[in-house]
Amino acid sequence: MDKHYYSYEDFLADTKVLTQKIDWKFDGIIAIARGGLSLAQLLGEYYNIREVYSINTIGYEDAAKLESVEVFNKPELKDAKSVLIVDDIVDSGDTLVEVLKVLSKAYPSVTFKTASLFYKKSAKIAPDWCVQETNKWIEFFWTVDIKRKI
Amino acid sequence: MDKHYYSYEDFLADTKVLTQKIDWKFDGIIAIARGGLSLAQLLGEYYNIREVYSINTIGYEDAAKLESVEVFNKPELKDAKSVLIVDDIVDSGDTLVEVLKVLSKAYPSVTFKTASLFYKKSAKIAPDWCVQETNKWIEFFWTVDIKRKI
Repeated sequence: MDKHYYSYEDFLADTKVLTQKIDWKFDGIIAIARGGLSLAQLLGEYYNIREVYSINTIGYEDAAKLESVEVFNKPELKDAKSVLIVDDIVDSGDTLVEVLKVLSKAYPSVTFKTASLFYKKSAKIAPDWCVQETNKWIEFFWTVDIKRKI
Repeated sequence: MDKHYYSYEDFLADTKVLTQKIDWKFDGIIAIARGGLSLAQLLGEYYNIREVYSINTIGYEDAAKLESVEVFNKPELKDAKSVLIVDDIVDSGDTLVEVLKVLSKAYPSVTFKTASLFYKKSAKIAPDWCVQETNKWIEFFWTVDIKRKI
Protein backbone atom coordinates (compact mmCIF):
# COMPACT_ATOMS: atom_id res chain seq x y z
CA MET A 1 0.00 0.00 0.00
CA ASP A 2 1.23 3.50 -0.80
CA LYS A 3 2.45 5.41 2.23
CA HIS A 4 1.75 9.07 2.79
CA TYR A 5 3.53 11.10 5.47
CA TYR A 6 1.08 13.41 7.22
CA SER A 7 2.87 16.27 8.96
CA TYR A 8 1.78 18.51 11.81
CA GLU A 9 1.22 21.28 9.24
CA ASP A 10 -1.08 19.00 7.21
CA PHE A 11 -2.94 18.09 10.38
CA LEU A 12 -3.35 21.71 11.43
CA ALA A 13 -4.64 22.76 7.99
CA ASP A 14 -7.08 19.82 7.85
CA THR A 15 -8.32 20.43 11.39
CA LYS A 16 -9.11 24.01 10.36
CA VAL A 17 -10.99 22.68 7.32
CA LEU A 18 -12.89 20.34 9.62
CA THR A 19 -14.00 23.24 11.82
CA GLN A 20 -15.33 24.99 8.71
CA LYS A 21 -17.30 21.91 7.69
CA ILE A 22 -18.88 21.10 11.05
CA ASP A 23 -22.23 22.90 10.96
CA TRP A 24 -23.44 21.68 14.32
CA LYS A 25 -23.28 22.93 17.89
CA PHE A 26 -21.94 20.44 20.40
CA ASP A 27 -20.91 20.59 24.03
CA GLY A 28 -18.64 17.60 24.43
CA ILE A 29 -15.92 15.77 22.51
CA ILE A 30 -14.88 12.13 22.75
CA ALA A 31 -11.58 11.02 21.25
CA ILE A 32 -11.22 7.43 20.19
CA ALA A 33 -7.80 6.64 21.70
CA ARG A 34 -5.11 6.79 20.64
CA GLY A 35 -5.79 8.08 17.11
CA GLY A 36 -8.17 10.89 17.98
CA LEU A 37 -6.37 12.35 21.02
CA SER A 38 -4.48 15.26 19.43
CA LEU A 39 -7.44 16.13 17.21
CA ALA A 40 -9.72 16.22 20.25
CA GLN A 41 -7.30 18.49 22.08
CA LEU A 42 -7.17 21.02 19.23
CA LEU A 43 -10.93 20.94 18.70
CA GLY A 44 -11.51 21.40 22.43
CA GLU A 45 -9.32 24.50 22.32
CA TYR A 46 -10.94 25.82 19.15
CA TYR A 47 -14.51 25.45 20.42
CA ASN A 48 -13.57 26.30 24.01
CA ILE A 49 -15.00 22.99 25.20
CA ARG A 50 -13.42 21.61 28.38
CA GLU A 51 -15.51 18.43 28.28
CA VAL A 52 -12.99 16.48 26.22
CA TYR A 53 -13.08 12.77 26.96
CA SER A 54 -11.61 9.60 25.52
CA ILE A 55 -12.78 6.07 24.94
CA ASN A 56 -10.74 2.93 24.32
CA THR A 57 -11.20 0.05 21.91
CA ILE A 58 -9.45 -3.23 21.29
CA GLY A 59 -9.91 -5.13 18.06
CA TYR A 60 -9.54 -8.89 18.15
CA GLU A 61 -10.53 -12.13 16.46
CA ASP A 62 -12.86 -14.38 18.39
CA ALA A 63 -12.71 -18.18 18.48
CA ALA A 64 -14.68 -18.35 15.22
CA LYS A 65 -12.13 -15.98 13.59
CA LEU A 66 -14.72 -13.23 13.42
CA GLU A 67 -13.29 -9.79 13.93
CA SER A 68 -14.83 -7.78 16.70
CA VAL A 69 -14.18 -4.63 18.67
CA GLU A 70 -14.34 -4.30 22.45
CA VAL A 71 -15.13 -0.83 23.75
CA PHE A 72 -14.10 0.21 27.26
CA ASN A 73 -13.62 3.32 29.40
CA LYS A 74 -16.91 4.79 28.29
CA PRO A 75 -16.77 8.34 29.69
CA GLU A 76 -19.21 9.87 32.13
CA LEU A 77 -20.67 12.73 30.08
CA LYS A 78 -21.70 15.15 32.84
CA ASP A 79 -24.24 17.54 31.30
CA ALA A 80 -23.23 17.15 27.64
CA LYS A 81 -26.20 16.63 25.32
CA SER A 82 -24.52 16.86 21.89
CA VAL A 83 -21.21 15.07 21.61
CA LEU A 84 -18.74 14.88 18.75
CA ILE A 85 -16.80 11.61 18.47
CA VAL A 86 -13.44 12.07 16.72
CA ASP A 87 -10.83 9.76 15.28
CA ASP A 88 -7.88 10.19 12.94
CA ILE A 89 -9.13 7.78 10.28
CA VAL A 90 -12.23 5.73 9.61
CA ASP A 91 -10.75 2.63 8.03
CA SER A 92 -12.99 -0.45 8.09
CA GLY A 93 -15.47 1.51 10.21
CA ASP A 94 -15.72 -1.36 12.73
CA THR A 95 -14.43 0.77 15.59
CA LEU A 96 -16.72 3.72 14.93
CA VAL A 97 -19.80 1.50 14.55
CA GLU A 98 -19.11 -0.22 17.86
CA VAL A 99 -18.30 3.01 19.71
CA LEU A 100 -21.54 4.60 18.45
CA LYS A 101 -23.51 1.52 19.48
CA VAL A 102 -22.08 1.47 23.02
CA LEU A 103 -22.46 5.22 23.58
CA SER A 104 -25.97 5.46 22.13
CA LYS A 105 -27.10 2.61 24.35
CA ALA A 106 -25.54 4.16 27.46
CA TYR A 107 -26.79 7.68 26.70
CA PRO A 108 -30.06 7.43 24.77
CA SER A 109 -30.83 11.13 25.29
CA VAL A 110 -27.50 12.37 23.94
CA THR A 111 -26.98 13.10 20.22
CA PHE A 112 -23.69 11.75 18.89
CA LYS A 113 -22.10 12.80 15.63
CA THR A 114 -18.75 11.83 14.19
CA ALA A 115 -15.76 13.50 12.55
CA SER A 116 -12.41 12.30 11.25
CA LEU A 117 -9.50 13.58 9.23
CA PHE A 118 -9.47 10.63 6.81
CA TYR A 119 -11.89 7.98 5.71
CA LYS A 120 -11.80 5.06 3.32
CA LYS A 121 -14.62 4.53 0.84
CA SER A 122 -14.75 0.88 1.82
CA ALA A 123 -15.67 1.76 5.42
CA LYS A 124 -19.04 0.46 6.58
CA ILE A 125 -19.92 3.86 8.04
CA ALA A 126 -19.12 7.37 6.85
CA PRO A 127 -18.32 10.01 9.47
CA ASP A 128 -20.69 12.99 9.52
CA TRP A 129 -17.74 15.27 8.68
CA CYS A 130 -14.42 14.35 7.17
CA VAL A 131 -11.59 16.09 5.33
CA GLN A 132 -9.86 13.60 3.05
CA GLU A 133 -10.79 10.34 1.37
CA THR A 134 -7.78 8.07 1.02
CA ASN A 135 -6.67 4.62 -0.05
CA LYS A 136 -3.15 5.10 1.29
CA TRP A 137 -1.44 4.10 4.49
CA ILE A 138 -1.20 7.36 6.39
CA GLU A 139 1.96 7.85 8.43
CA PHE A 140 0.73 10.33 11.01
CA PHE A 141 3.28 12.75 12.48
CA TRP A 142 2.51 11.58 16.01
CA THR A 143 3.61 8.05 15.05
CA VAL A 144 6.63 8.94 12.93
CA ASP A 145 8.20 12.14 14.31
CA ILE A 146 8.74 10.92 17.85
CA LYS A 147 10.66 7.86 16.65
CA ARG A 148 13.12 9.84 14.52
CA LYS A 149 16.58 10.45 15.95
CA ILE A 150 17.07 13.97 17.30
CA MET B 1 3.28 37.54 33.09
CA ASP B 2 5.72 36.93 30.24
CA LYS B 3 4.26 34.86 27.45
CA HIS B 4 6.20 32.20 25.63
CA TYR B 5 4.97 30.58 22.40
CA TYR B 6 5.62 26.86 22.46
CA SER B 7 5.59 25.40 18.94
CA TYR B 8 5.05 21.86 17.73
CA GLU B 9 8.80 21.64 17.08
CA ASP B 10 9.53 22.67 20.70
CA PHE B 11 7.02 20.09 21.91
CA LEU B 12 8.51 17.33 19.78
CA ALA B 13 12.06 18.10 20.94
CA ASP B 14 10.99 18.22 24.60
CA THR B 15 8.98 15.02 24.33
CA LYS B 16 12.12 13.31 23.00
CA VAL B 17 14.08 14.70 25.97
CA LEU B 18 11.38 13.37 28.28
CA THR B 19 11.75 9.86 26.83
CA GLN B 20 15.48 10.05 27.52
CA LYS B 21 14.89 11.07 31.12
CA ILE B 22 12.22 8.51 32.01
CA ASP B 23 14.18 5.60 33.48
CA TRP B 24 11.19 3.47 34.36
CA LYS B 25 9.21 0.75 32.62
CA PHE B 26 5.47 1.32 32.51
CA ASP B 27 2.56 -0.34 30.76
CA GLY B 28 -0.11 2.35 30.77
CA ILE B 29 -0.42 6.11 30.27
CA ILE B 30 -3.06 8.47 31.63
CA ALA B 31 -3.40 11.95 30.14
CA ILE B 32 -4.84 14.68 32.31
CA ALA B 33 -7.30 16.25 29.84
CA ARG B 34 -7.07 18.42 27.95
CA GLY B 35 -3.44 19.47 28.53
CA GLY B 36 -1.83 16.04 28.43
CA LEU B 37 -3.69 14.55 25.44
CA SER B 38 -1.17 15.14 22.63
CA LEU B 39 1.75 14.25 24.89
CA ALA B 40 0.06 10.98 25.83
CA GLN B 41 -0.55 10.16 22.18
CA LEU B 42 3.11 10.66 21.23
CA LEU B 43 4.38 8.74 24.26
CA GLY B 44 1.97 5.90 23.53
CA GLU B 45 3.38 5.69 20.02
CA TYR B 46 7.00 5.93 21.21
CA TYR B 47 6.66 3.21 23.84
CA ASN B 48 4.23 1.16 21.76
CA ILE B 49 1.67 1.30 24.56
CA ARG B 50 -1.95 1.04 23.43
CA GLU B 51 -3.29 1.48 26.97
CA VAL B 52 -3.52 5.26 26.73
CA TYR B 53 -6.30 6.68 28.88
CA SER B 54 -7.48 10.08 30.00
CA ILE B 55 -8.88 11.56 33.18
CA ASN B 56 -10.80 14.80 33.69
CA THR B 57 -10.60 17.45 36.36
CA ILE B 58 -12.54 20.60 37.15
CA GLY B 59 -11.12 23.27 39.42
CA TYR B 60 -13.57 25.39 41.40
CA GLU B 61 -13.99 27.48 44.50
CA ASP B 62 -16.24 26.06 47.18
CA ALA B 63 -18.63 28.03 49.39
CA ALA B 64 -15.77 28.93 51.72
CA LYS B 65 -13.74 30.25 48.72
CA LEU B 66 -11.31 27.37 49.07
CA GLU B 67 -9.99 26.13 45.76
CA SER B 68 -10.49 22.49 45.08
CA VAL B 69 -10.26 20.04 42.23
CA GLU B 70 -12.87 17.49 41.27
CA VAL B 71 -11.58 14.42 39.43
CA PHE B 72 -13.86 12.37 37.19
CA ASN B 73 -13.72 9.77 34.44
CA LYS B 74 -11.19 7.70 36.30
CA PRO B 75 -10.14 5.09 33.71
CA GLU B 76 -10.46 1.35 34.05
CA LEU B 77 -6.83 0.21 33.92
CA LYS B 78 -7.21 -3.32 32.57
CA ASP B 79 -3.98 -5.15 33.42
CA ALA B 80 -1.69 -2.14 33.76
CA LYS B 81 0.48 -2.25 36.88
CA SER B 82 2.81 0.72 36.28
CA VAL B 83 1.14 3.81 34.92
CA LEU B 84 2.59 7.14 33.84
CA ILE B 85 0.34 10.18 34.42
CA VAL B 86 1.12 13.02 32.03
CA ASP B 87 0.20 16.68 31.76
CA ASP B 88 1.51 19.65 29.84
CA ILE B 89 2.39 21.76 32.88
CA VAL B 90 2.40 21.35 36.63
CA ASP B 91 1.38 24.81 37.76
CA SER B 92 0.00 25.01 41.31
CA GLY B 93 0.19 21.22 41.52
CA ASP B 94 -3.39 21.02 42.84
CA THR B 95 -4.60 18.97 39.88
CA LEU B 96 -1.75 16.47 39.99
CA VAL B 97 -2.06 15.98 43.76
CA GLU B 98 -5.78 15.28 43.49
CA VAL B 99 -5.42 12.97 40.47
CA LEU B 100 -2.71 10.97 42.26
CA LYS B 101 -4.88 10.74 45.38
CA VAL B 102 -7.94 9.49 43.49
CA LEU B 103 -6.02 6.98 41.36
CA SER B 104 -3.90 5.61 44.23
CA LYS B 105 -7.04 5.05 46.29
CA ALA B 106 -8.84 3.31 43.43
CA TYR B 107 -5.84 1.20 42.42
CA PRO B 108 -3.72 0.53 45.52
CA SER B 109 -1.68 -2.17 43.75
CA VAL B 110 -0.73 0.02 40.78
CA THR B 111 2.39 2.20 40.82
CA PHE B 112 1.79 5.71 39.47
CA LYS B 113 4.52 8.09 38.40
CA THR B 114 4.21 11.49 36.79
CA ALA B 115 5.73 13.42 33.89
CA SER B 116 5.17 16.84 32.39
CA LEU B 117 6.77 19.17 29.89
CA PHE B 118 6.82 22.18 32.23
CA TYR B 119 6.65 22.74 35.94
CA LYS B 120 6.68 25.76 38.21
CA LYS B 121 8.94 25.85 41.25
CA SER B 122 6.02 27.06 43.33
CA ALA B 123 4.02 23.87 42.64
CA LYS B 124 3.18 21.81 45.72
CA ILE B 125 4.34 18.63 43.98
CA ALA B 126 7.17 18.02 41.52
CA PRO B 127 6.59 15.54 38.69
CA ASP B 128 8.93 12.53 38.66
CA TRP B 129 10.20 13.65 35.25
CA CYS B 130 9.99 17.04 33.64
CA VAL B 131 11.75 18.96 30.89
CA GLN B 132 11.58 22.68 31.64
CA GLU B 133 11.10 24.83 34.70
CA THR B 134 9.27 28.04 33.87
CA ASN B 135 7.72 31.14 35.38
CA LYS B 136 6.13 32.20 32.10
CA TRP B 137 2.70 31.82 30.64
CA ILE B 138 3.16 29.11 28.03
CA GLU B 139 1.14 29.53 24.85
CA PHE B 140 0.97 25.95 23.66
CA PHE B 141 0.69 25.35 19.92
CA TRP B 142 -2.51 23.35 20.38
CA THR B 143 -4.18 26.42 21.89
CA VAL B 144 -2.77 29.07 19.58
CA ASP B 145 -2.25 27.52 16.12
CA ILE B 146 -5.82 26.33 15.61
CA LYS B 147 -7.22 29.81 16.29
CA ARG B 148 -5.02 31.56 13.72
CA LYS B 149 -6.58 32.45 10.38
CA ILE B 150 -5.57 30.11 7.57
